[in-house]
Amino acid sequence: MPTISTPSKIAGTKSHGANVVFSGSTSDEREAVTADIIKKTGATLVPPYDHPDIILGAGTQALELEQQVEDMLAADPSLGVPGKKRLDAVIAPIGGGGMLSGICTALHGTGIKVFGAEPNFEGSNDAELGLKQGRRIEKVKTLTIADGLRTPVGEIPWSIITDKEKLEGVYSVSEEQITAAMRLAMERAKVFIEPSAAVGLAVVLYNEEFRRFVEGEGKEEGWNIGIVLSGGNTTMEAMAKLFQAPAKAMERAEGKVTVNGEHVAENVPG
Amino acid sequence: MPTISTPSKIAGTKSHGANVVFSGSTSDEREAVTADIIKKTGATLVPPYDHPDIILGAGTQALELEQQVEDMLAADPSLGVPGKKRLDAVIAPIGGGGMLSGICTALHGTGIKVFGAEPNFEGSNDAELGLKQGRRIEKVKTLTIADGLRTPVGEIPWSIITDKEKLEGVYSVSEEQITAAMRLAMERAKVFIEPSAAVGLAVVLYNEEFRRFVEGEGKEEGWNIGIVLSGGNTTMEAMAKLFQAPAKAMERAEGKVTVNGEHVAENVPG
Repeated sequence: MPTISTPSKIAGTKSHGANVVFSGSTSDEREAVTADIIKKTGATLVPPYDHPDIILGAGTQALELEQQVEDMLAADPSLGVPGKKRLDAVIAPIGGGGMLSGICTALHGTGIKVFGAEPNFEGSNDAELGLKQGRRIEKVKTLTIADGLRTPVGEIPWSIITDKEKLEGVYSVSEEQITAAMRLAMERAKVFIEPSAAVGLAVVLYNEEFRRFVEGEGKEEGWNIGIVLSGGNTTMEAMAKLFQAPAKAMERAEGKVTVNGEHVAENVPG
Repeated sequence: MPTISTPSKIAGTKSHGANVVFSGSTSDEREAVTADIIKKTGATLVPPYDHPDIILGAGTQALELEQQVEDMLAADPSLGVPGKKRLDAVIAPIGGGGMLSGICTALHGTGIKVFGAEPNFEGSNDAELGLKQGRRIEKVKTLTIADGLRTPVGEIPWSIITDKEKLEGVYSVSEEQITAAMRLAMERAKVFIEPSAAVGLAVVLYNEEFRRFVEGEGKEEGWNIGIVLSGGNTTMEAMAKLFQAPAKAMERAEGKVTVNGEHVAENVPG
């Protein structure tokens, strides 16, 4: 792990029984330390996203989600769009793209549409921009609060998400939209998530282009959309930093901050 | 609602369709406004805890918990203590005592032991102290962070929790133990809870008297304990205030803050 990792993340990793070895924070430094460990111990490298096994493994969550929604709607149809017995779409975060391309692979041929969600601060929407430009963006330098999504899309994930039969599209959101979605997930749904996890919810709530697309496709009845919230690897101190700025926080709490013209504090579904 | 209620709580209440009427924050002021509304509209008062219907309603959660744990252990026995097919005990917060006395009533005669959990800052452990002194404490003045538990135990709940066949005991925890339990619930279990919700978990983790009692009763094999986390009515700003104090937060993150002699940041179960 990079030496700059948050202490609670290091402690959490150790508590699972891991032997943590430290490195510098650049990819060169990390890869050098990794190569050294492999050389010394014969360890096997488990890459974070750019490998078929990782992609297929991450994709199994889509099979679970698909089944759980079918079971849930069979037990209580009122939980979904009237008359529909399954998901119409799934939206998930895209950083390196291992998880999203796995979901694309798992749901290919089911008729369930797959979307990616990204932050757009300082060009962190490399997947969205890359798809528009028709080429993979290989370098991203951003300090978006969605720190799990600062990575450019990997080569194998790129080869999957560029297949229009597998991915419908990628939409992006601002830092403020991500924060507003985090607030909703935590204060109302009581789910503790990191900023990277909130991008899908933020797209569904605040991205006008996405919302128009769904209105066009779903018509009056609407869609059942599965939103992947991945993950929750953050600390209370990081949360405090995001939500403490006194003036801004007070305005937000008083409903004066707007996102796409809507008052955030009052824009909470019942 | 008192005019000093947090704006997001007011907005959240309104979003459920409520007509919110404001009052001062003392109980006299609140009761005067309530009496006025009842006089004008013929509305029915729903008391927060000191009424048999409220107590019985709150108690149904214990029946759900009992059943859900039995179903869960039938499906996967490895989730519980080896060889046990049900709960040994339930621990829940006690403020006015409506919820806890409901749980006591629901589980009476099942053999499942019921415990109460309280903050002890500035005498907020009125149930624990009252049980020791053999009389109900009628006034409590405390600013514990567990703001849902600042109320003294009501008369009807008191008549239930003083029955030794129904309640095993009440244990209390410090502000720092509550905060440490909140951190664990959020950072590791990913459940967003308010301070009042964390007292049961804090007792289980940090109250040495309770832990010795469970060791004595549960012997080597231990107990299956159900912990009620109620509720999550707080804001990100309130969380930020709790976890932002820079010096303290940094020490905590670095594992220098101890609770009962254990390093908090490193004391996270895998």
